[in-house]
Amino acid sequence: MFVVQVIGRHNSGKTTLIEFLTKELTKRNLKVGYIKHDPKGKGNTDKPNSDTHRVKTSTIRTALVSPSLTTLWFLESLSLKQVLKFFKDLDVVIVEGFKFEKGFPKILVGQLEEDIKNPIKEEIVLTVEGKEDYKKALSWILKNLNSAVGE
Amino acid sequence: MFVVQVIGRHNSGKTTLIEFLTKELTKRNLKVGYIKHDPKGKGNTDKPNSDTHRVKTSTIRTALVSPSLTTLWFLESLSLKQVLKFFKDLDVVIVEGFKFEKGFPKILVGQLEEDIKNPIKEEIVLTVEGKEDYKKALSWILKNLNSAVGE
Repeated sequence: MFVVQVIGRHNSGKTTLIEFLTKELTKRNLKVGYIKHDPKGKGNTDKPNSDTHRVKTSTIRTALVSPSLTTLWFLESLSLKQVLKFFKDLDVVIVEGFKFEKGFPKILVGQLEEDIKNPIKEEIVLTVEGKEDYKKALSWILKNLNSAVGE
Repeated sequence: MFVVQVIGRHNSGKTTLIEFLTKELTKRNLKVGYIKHDPKGKGNTDKPNSDTHRVKTSTIRTALVSPSLTTLWFLESLSLKQVLKFFKDLDVVIVEGFKFEKGFPKILVGQLEEDIKNPIKEEIVLTVEGKEDYKKALSWILKNLNSAVGE
């Protein structure tokens, strides 16, 4: 990983230079990433014509670092295990979907076709039929979270 | 890190349950993250009223995994060093801004006030005044990238 910074005043043309560089480097089969510091931004600039978006489309990975939000875009579909690495320091990670992924307890909401349900049946710890079951789901997590502490 | 999955058919109410769970768990001072698999999405769902956005605002870290894009939101301003960890496998990382960060070569676009420039003067490898200097910047990167290989 070779890191180079492009600095300069606001509106000096940093992004235009970076756009040129990423295109030229990518043409040479180099894997290029882009990290933008946006100290005055809100970090939500996903707009099609924004500076960030322009560079985003020419790099395979982009980060936008704002005062209260850091956003990372990977131009690929990461596996659940790859993504979980970025969450290691948290207490609870709730995963929506990835139903074919084994190894984690599963709360089922509603019904599921038998052929989909069968291979993961043993990992379904609870079925939520309606709002009256929400507290059960919460209790299950709190109970098992506590029993997992210290493991 | 305690991982739990919420699974179910499309429109079964997974996100509503997750919204309840993240709020309740956060109230109990737990750090909660949310990973959503969106196999049919384009990964750009940053819209204020979308499902993802609703949960995003109640967790401190969110990932959205789509077929050709994975997006991660950290509700904090990461340091350059923290962000660079996610780019380790790439060849070149271009950093825009972070001008007070030491340790990396810097390409300056345009002018910079003397008091800002002075502390980082030794790291400025090139000054770009206009488009005629773009190729110089590219050459500088290519040359130094190659000399860095094998280090």
